[in-house]
Amino acid sequence: MGDAVLEQVLARLEAGRDQSLARLKAILRLPSIGTDPAYQAETRACAEWLVAELAGLGFAASLRPTTGQPMVVAHHPGPPGADANLPHVLYYGHYDVQPAEPLELWTSPPFEPRVVEAEHGPRIVARGAVDDKGQLMTFIEAMRAWHGVTGSLPVRVTVFLEGEEESGSTSLEPFLAAHRDELRADVCVVSDTGLWDIDTPALATLLRGLMYLELTLHGPSHDLHSGLYGGAVANPLNLLTRILGQLHDEAGRVQLPGFYDDCVDLSAEAAEWAALAADEPAFLASVGLQVPHGEAGRSLLERLWARPTCDLNGVWGGYTGPGSKTVIPAKASAKLSFRLVPGQAPAKIQASLARFLAARTPPDCRWQIDNLGSGPALRMPRESRYLRAAQAALAQTFGRPAVMIGMGGSIPAIEAIKRLLGMDSILMGFGLIDDRVHSPNEKFELRCFHQGMRAHARLLAELGALPPAS
Amino acid sequence: MGDAVLEQVLARLEAGRDQSLARLKAILRLPSIGTDPAYQAETRACAEWLVAELAGLGFAASLRPTTGQPMVVAHHPGPPGADANLPHVLYYGHYDVQPAEPLELWTSPPFEPRVVEAEHGPRIVARGAVDDKGQLMTFIEAMRAWHGVTGSLPVRVTVFLEGEEESGSTSLEPFLAAHRDELRADVCVVSDTGLWDIDTPALATLLRGLMYLELTLHGPSHDLHSGLYGGAVANPLNLLTRILGQLHDEAGRVQLPGFYDDCVDLSAEAAEWAALAADEPAFLASVGLQVPHGEAGRSLLERLWARPTCDLNGVWGGYTGPGSKTVIPAKASAKLSFRLVPGQAPAKIQASLARFLAARTPPDCRWQIDNLGSGPALRMPRESRYLRAAQAALAQTFGRPAVMIGMGGSIPAIEAIKRLLGMDSILMGFGLIDDRVHSPNEKFELRCFHQGMRAHARLLAELGALPPAS
Repeated sequence: MGDAVLEQVLARLEAGRDQSLARLKAILRLPSIGTDPAYQAETRACAEWLVAELAGLGFAASLRPTTGQPMVVAHHPGPPGADANLPHVLYYGHYDVQPAEPLELWTSPPFEPRVVEAEHGPRIVARGAVDDKGQLMTFIEAMRAWHGVTGSLPVRVTVFLEGEEESGSTSLEPFLAAHRDELRADVCVVSDTGLWDIDTPALATLLRGLMYLELTLHGPSHDLHSGLYGGAVANPLNLLTRILGQLHDEAGRVQLPGFYDDCVDLSAEAAEWAALAADEPAFLASVGLQVPHGEAGRSLLERLWARPTCDLNGVWGGYTGPGSKTVIPAKASAKLSFRLVPGQAPAKIQASLARFLAARTPPDCRWQIDNLGSGPALRMPRESRYLRAAQAALAQTFGRPAVMIGMGGSIPAIEAIKRLLGMDSILMGFGLIDDRVHSPNEKFELRCFHQGMRAHARLLAELGALPPAS
Repeated sequence: MGDAVLEQVLARLEAGRDQSLARLKAILRLPSIGTDPAYQAETRACAEWLVAELAGLGFAASLRPTTGQPMVVAHHPGPPGADANLPHVLYYGHYDVQPAEPLELWTSPPFEPRVVEAEHGPRIVARGAVDDKGQLMTFIEAMRAWHGVTGSLPVRVTVFLEGEEESGSTSLEPFLAAHRDELRADVCVVSDTGLWDIDTPALATLLRGLMYLELTLHGPSHDLHSGLYGGAVANPLNLLTRILGQLHDEAGRVQLPGFYDDCVDLSAEAAEWAALAADEPAFLASVGLQVPHGEAGRSLLERLWARPTCDLNGVWGGYTGPGSKTVIPAKASAKLSFRLVPGQAPAKIQASLARFLAARTPPDCRWQIDNLGSGPALRMPRESRYLRAAQAALAQTFGRPAVMIGMGGSIPAIEAIKRLLGMDSILMGFGLIDDRVHSPNEKFELRCFHQGMRAHARLLAELGALPPAS
């Protein structure tokens, strides 16, 4: 594929900006709140809209039923007479959005997208603006430009979009398992992450895993009056705070025996991140804090991306209403989650926790532990021909090289695609930290939208130009 | 007052048992759930019923409005031509009852009193059976018998009954303060406590105090995603468990500096209680536990009655619904209460707690502490002519001496009567530990009801026979 063709594709993107924006607005107007049964028809309408768009670009596109929201699956054979060795690329994204509540905090209705001027130029404000409708439209618009110029795409492409990402991706694994052969490709490309800053592209190669547990400590057979029993019986709330309060030491290290034993050495990544000069005071100030927190002796980015954590996400028990009630409750509960790094096995950590709790609990009290979901961390190759293609596309688009970053959160689909289809993913996203994902007034900078389309157009060129795999 | 008169009074009680039971049933049928606005008319009807009963016994009885439930106040001048030196006795009780929920656990409707046979003979099952309607009827029935035999009472009596005991006694202190002169007497008699066992009477002379606090730890300015921030920001739930988990040491001792400094020595009481041979395994088994708990080196009764405690009564924060949400919450809260013993000052302990929390909290996080109520412990005289009268009445009724006990809980009215009217109270109650106070199927043994009436009849005789105070 010659550079001249790519230049035509980029020029077509440039000339078609208004139409690209119009299409982005069109999909943002569809309130695809997948988790809310009241929006079932609208969610399906969004999936149908995408099927129609992809069919218009030469895809064999269809809606696939699941027990939840339907999947969008679309296949493009690549250029006419494509070599069987031409790369086959799976694009993953999701068309569902978070609920828009609290509605009163929106400055304009969440499903009436509005373009407003701000420090980086125009931005579009709507639920789903960046997560993930705006981002998935970056590659669909890039494909549209290629289709417009060449009548085809430079590589074989499968687009796979789910509608349950914001509600636990319940149907994803069964669907992947049932359609391995149809969905397996050479590499997966995902745009659901961010830039380092508006001028600096990023590729995420490290994603922390997650294990989420619900714990309940059972003590007395029923709620007791603290006047009649206080001082002579085990109080599950006292015990729960006492025991869970021992999960960290003074230096912020998790105290479960063996917790750090299997952590892969990530000093190479950490050394690179040092060059990013992350601004910890600004990071803290953005959430109303001032004091560095977490594992002593580790940089901010190491703590966020390369070190495991243990956080209580909820605690409840006893009387929690207004006023006072002098109760010693029969039980107390907590939601406890661990962010995991490569090497750590969720089952081993859960077993260590169970022993840690039991060793600190009187024999007449009992912990119930429910695992609400877990997935290991992912470490993508930091060197591959596909990653090089993405690096080239980003460097040419932004005029500077992409930084290789980690992600503190997990994207369950990436892990499932790796585990069930055996494919690595290229995480090439265009969001910014202040995009208010999941919050009122979610936005996407149009500059990011345009750079994303261009980068995807270039990535398609780079992938099409790869030599046959050896 | 001769023994012959007392024998007639006791015989009249015996002969009138069926009528006494009928009146107990009548008051138990009135659903005086003072805390619930839906029962306002029924609560007032119960107070009016008591006014009418007392008026029928020669009292000048009236309903007194408050901002909440009305007070019942009734005065009896004592025998005709009573000496001004004759004792004046204030009887305190409450006519309101706890809500009956959960209704489905009652074996018969809570406000349709039912007499059933059990190990100790017949018992009456209803909300309020023992707390406090059944108990206050023991002294009203005793007064009725005296009135029936002599046309009067052997001492000057004021009956003072409130309707907000189960909902915080909000009006009690203002009412006491506004009616000091009217309500002040020589001694207060209260029947809202228990026997040691069904054969052994008890007098409570030690009541623990209470300080009830609500704590909120404020951290980040808003809820955060644990993937994006976990490991690098203060998590209020982690901090709250870590800090409150340090409130006790391994030996069960409260770790607030100075917490035990002012505790009065109660070894005399503790030595007496040793003779009671409390059965700790049975105590624990009754609430589904086996392992002794609390301050090491202290007997069960010391831990329950004579040692201060610190118990969490509620904890909440973050996500507490079904499933998982990876949130680091902006704040976390707890209800924390202290049972206090004589000598301990609530304000001093609250100040020590505030320092304890602050010393363990990063400077960018902040504790809010709200005091929801506090009152010091009470230590009644263990030797007085009124107590001797009660001891004599109980010993004659039960055929064995009363044991002197403590109470783990507080009765705020007793403390207020001491503080505002300067009067000690005789705590002479007839409940049993298994009466299911505040629970479904609350009951009162009729044997206890009858012994209570007899003991109160004898107490009136004893008080009437006291020599003039010097």
